[in-house]
Amino acid sequence: MKKVSELSLIGLKNLKNKINFIRKEMENLKIDAYFVYYLPNISYLTGFRGSSAYLIITKNKSYFITDGRYKEEAEKEVEREFKILIHKGLIETIKKEKFMRYIKRIGFEKEVLPYGFYKNFEKETGKKLVPCDDIIKKIRKYKSEEEIEKIKEAQKINEKIFNEILEIIEPGKTTESLLAAEIEYRIRKNGGEPAFSPIVATGENSALPHAKPRERIIKNNKPLKIDMGVKYKGWCSDMTRTIWIGNKVSKEFEKIYQIVLDANNKAIDFLKPGVSGKDVDKVARDYIEEKGYGKYFPHGLGHGIGVEVHEAPALSFLSKDIIEEGMVFTIEPGIYLPGDFGVRIEDMVYIKDGEKKILTKTKKELIKI
Amino acid sequence: MKKVSELSLIGLKNLKNKINFIRKEMENLKIDAYFVYYLPNISYLTGFRGSSAYLIITKNKSYFITDGRYKEEAEKEVEREFKILIHKGLIETIKKEKFMRYIKRIGFEKEVLPYGFYKNFEKETGKKLVPCDDIIKKIRKYKSEEEIEKIKEAQKINEKIFNEILEIIEPGKTTESLLAAEIEYRIRKNGGEPAFSPIVATGENSALPHAKPRERIIKNNKPLKIDMGVKYKGWCSDMTRTIWIGNKVSKEFEKIYQIVLDANNKAIDFLKPGVSGKDVDKVARDYIEEKGYGKYFPHGLGHGIGVEVHEAPALSFLSKDIIEEGMVFTIEPGIYLPGDFGVRIEDMVYIKDGEKKILTKTKKELIKI
Repeated sequence: MKKVSELSLIGLKNLKNKINFIRKEMENLKIDAYFVYYLPNISYLTGFRGSSAYLIITKNKSYFITDGRYKEEAEKEVEREFKILIHKGLIETIKKEKFMRYIKRIGFEKEVLPYGFYKNFEKETGKKLVPCDDIIKKIRKYKSEEEIEKIKEAQKINEKIFNEILEIIEPGKTTESLLAAEIEYRIRKNGGEPAFSPIVATGENSALPHAKPRERIIKNNKPLKIDMGVKYKGWCSDMTRTIWIGNKVSKEFEKIYQIVLDANNKAIDFLKPGVSGKDVDKVARDYIEEKGYGKYFPHGLGHGIGVEVHEAPALSFLSKDIIEEGMVFTIEPGIYLPGDFGVRIEDMVYIKDGEKKILTKTKKELIKI
Repeated sequence: MKKVSELSLIGLKNLKNKINFIRKEMENLKIDAYFVYYLPNISYLTGFRGSSAYLIITKNKSYFITDGRYKEEAEKEVEREFKILIHKGLIETIKKEKFMRYIKRIGFEKEVLPYGFYKNFEKETGKKLVPCDDIIKKIRKYKSEEEIEKIKEAQKINEKIFNEILEIIEPGKTTESLLAAEIEYRIRKNGGEPAFSPIVATGENSALPHAKPRERIIKNNKPLKIDMGVKYKGWCSDMTRTIWIGNKVSKEFEKIYQIVLDANNKAIDFLKPGVSGKDVDKVARDYIEEKGYGKYFPHGLGHGIGVEVHEAPALSFLSKDIIEEGMVFTIEPGIYLPGDFGVRIEDMVYIKDGEKKILTKTKKELIKI
């Protein structure tokens, strides 16, 4: 547990601490440099928001490398800690840099770096490339107070827009696609960007866990599933509510809604620092199974959220993560009855001062409009 | 040249031809199966639009593998050619399949498959994994008549929306972000999705080739760069126009605009089947250099477009592609003067019946509003 709290502390501090942590890991791994290829990791450390960049962190210095298109953004956005290099071909550029002379072993993110990139990089630089677990992912799991505040801001906008769009639904007229477009539009108007393409799924379309909005009219006396997220200043939010259009709620829907709601609450009740992501999932899954709908809950219970909408920790039947201080994640059980309808209720939760806190404010009892 | 026309023919035909081509390549590569990891390749072959899937193409059969979230979509969207498998862990699932018994060597897309995935897949399946150049990328380079029609449809919507949004700009009031939000909203309303986040950049922000729209007001007597693309039924479009807000066009802007326009036209004039992507780039680049602005044109001249907004062929100083029948690509020279302004003019062009055809209809002479 010592290592864990060490890590938690890092999340609470600044870029220097994060880089120091990376350098310590580099020492353990006996590598002279760490090559960062994964853009969300780069954006997390540097603040850069463009679509192409790399980092090389050596024992003494940190380099940010991009191409000519992003020269100005890099100079504006990237943290001063990094020396900016503009390349016209990554390998040719870094080969000319003096620091490369003192490097023998370069670590890389083995879960994301493509095989061909790895092979070519090793061949062209003549260095030994060392496959590593993602060091920055480890840091990202633990959010600082400041980072949690940013996620809260993103979720605040998310809920504001959710409430707004409830007002504009005209049953028998509004389509799923139009409502999804409205959500995105309002996210942009509020200075954010969609954390993912919103899911707006009515009637039997709601039985698809990840339905694409279609030209389908939202009708009375049908459920409507809305899953939406805002990315604001680089940080994501995520929320799902399944609502009912009209007053005549079908008995079957009511029953399933209650099971999903209970599963959501039971999982949240169970949460505390030290429990495993697998066990939290199991609480909701066992309950849904007990009610006879186990096979209609085909996805994991939840996922961490931060600079990416899906990141560590995982809360699922395959997860190996432990829930700890500073983590922010979703709890989103669902039951999907093919050809009929589906219900998902998704909240964001975080752990602070040894306690779970619910980040999502929107009510979970069935909303009828 | 024989191989080229062979490939061109494939683009003109159906899924069966494409799979046959993959199987021929498999023979050449002495592999028993080809594992497809790259989602745009999967979407191209199968029609699937979800966010997680794999293909395995063997000598006799083709398998589409996804998880429980996408069961229904897969059954609806995926071409009948593929047998659908639902996994709860990719490797455990395929290990149980009979076809795996007859397979020794599995090819994979070396440019995209992550190193860790490759290592784990090899270890867990006990098969020999063979790094391959992307076979499907080769096919995707050549568009069939039907595919070109789909790209035309996407571009038609793109230009319709471009014209609409020119009408709603209120200088001194409309912000970049709002206009970008309007573009996305209208794309969705027209049944498409943004092929990428639109670039709306006014004044000195236009000097950033890939600027992010900000809360910046669009003002009179300033340039406005708009780069937008629509993805419609799975196919992309892409267009940039730099316009002028107001009537008093600055002399310097006029001069730069003319150079970029001439570079665009010269490159298109030069185009014909058989020339190299590098040489087309050179025509525009040499001209811009001759005019003294070479260092302000930091990106390639253009890129292929299809199911992805950036795909083969490349038109750039590093390109090794040859321009051929059936290719669809952009021509987009630009000059960016840091702190001042930038101009880019981007058209889509395709090669059909041995001739270049210009897909973009919007006028290239300076638009003033």
